[in-house]
Amino acid sequence: MSSTSPTLEALATPDLFEDDRAGHIYRIAAKLIHKQGFDATSMSAIADAAELTKAGLYYYVKSKKELLFKITSLAMDLLEKHVVEPARGVKEPLDRLRAIVLQHSYLLTHETGALAILTDEVAGLEPGDRKIIVARKRSDFDLVRSTLEELRSDGRLRAVDTTVAAFSLLGMVMWIARWYSAEGPLSRDRVAEDIAEIALGAVLSGTGAGQIQTLGNRP
Amino acid sequence: MSSTSPTLEALATPDLFEDDRAGHIYRIAAKLIHKQGFDATSMSAIADAAELTKAGLYYYVKSKKELLFKITSLAMDLLEKHVVEPARGVKEPLDRLRAIVLQHSYLLTHETGALAILTDEVAGLEPGDRKIIVARKRSDFDLVRSTLEELRSDGRLRAVDTTVAAFSLLGMVMWIARWYSAEGPLSRDRVAEDIAEIALGAVLSGTGAGQIQTLGNRP
Repeated sequence: MSSTSPTLEALATPDLFEDDRAGHIYRIAAKLIHKQGFDATSMSAIADAAELTKAGLYYYVKSKKELLFKITSLAMDLLEKHVVEPARGVKEPLDRLRAIVLQHSYLLTHETGALAILTDEVAGLEPGDRKIIVARKRSDFDLVRSTLEELRSDGRLRAVDTTVAAFSLLGMVMWIARWYSAEGPLSRDRVAEDIAEIALGAVLSGTGAGQIQTLGNRP
Repeated sequence: MSSTSPTLEALATPDLFEDDRAGHIYRIAAKLIHKQGFDATSMSAIADAAELTKAGLYYYVKSKKELLFKITSLAMDLLEKHVVEPARGVKEPLDRLRAIVLQHSYLLTHETGALAILTDEVAGLEPGDRKIIVARKRSDFDLVRSTLEELRSDGRLRAVDTTVAAFSLLGMVMWIARWYSAEGPLSRDRVAEDIAEIALGAVLSGTGAGQIQTLGNRP
């Protein structure tokens, strides 16, 4: 493995959640909204869950719409810090693709899943805020697709459209937030490793697919 | 191809949308809710879009919560009619898996995408209604997973957990509703065919993967 390639261990540190007080509040709010629905979750209920007075909550955000923007921004921050930035440092496209899928899968098995699901709720944001989130998502998508284009140039990609392939990989990874439960029988490592194998098998051609085994045997 | 196996052509008939007046209203409501968010979409706005008076809309549903249940029920009806039921008639597991992915992908490139996305909003449903939708989703998920188990018995599956694999396939297919636009450069057939190839590559082992090409050459 290239020494610049991120490892699961790098993510498994407490560092993932060394966010500030505001971040802590956004994570609690995201879990509650995910459970009850955005409509049904009042600012009072969020304040209660975060052990704040209502005035205390309004110190952080002026409205539910602004809260949604803060939550989605935090989700994008975590994605960029733990997945996108480390992956940009990986030169070899197959290593990079595997790093993206592995790290992103692992991130989504944490309680950050609720944050990630809310990045879907762009319709509920103010237009200016929506533009910011859409642009950040677009930039992350482009990294996946350009990595697939590199694999295509090397003759390692299936004969499929790279836009379809990039969204398929993103979809299978993002879906984790909707089904994975840490209380269930599957460990985070198992889910991330299996999804990485599934994802590479999904897009690599016969020749490329032969390399999965090698990757699977890494320490 | 087995004669019981569904084809893309079967779905491409106007039959997909031969729903009644109520179904027509639910589809319009779903598109509006998808675009604006559930919270921001009033019953008045839905009535306007459906060219009904507010009283006319209340003839069909008593509340926004009931409307959401009707929308998600319609999404499940379409899935079961056009994907699950035809697939249950396909005996060979690889043919069945390909039929599920192909037909479901094709279904989601239609405007039914907005309906499908709202099946995620179970948190907004009344408890009894939520139970019904969750049970229907579970039954459809079980068909995918049991098909993967059959492929495992035949030695055609990658060494991955079948729950992880089934959710991965479901995620990549469900994601279509979030990104595909009929106004974009990709045809519905192209998307469905590419996703079917990606999905089989994702889960089949080396031996099994060799069969994709054969399937791809079908008429």
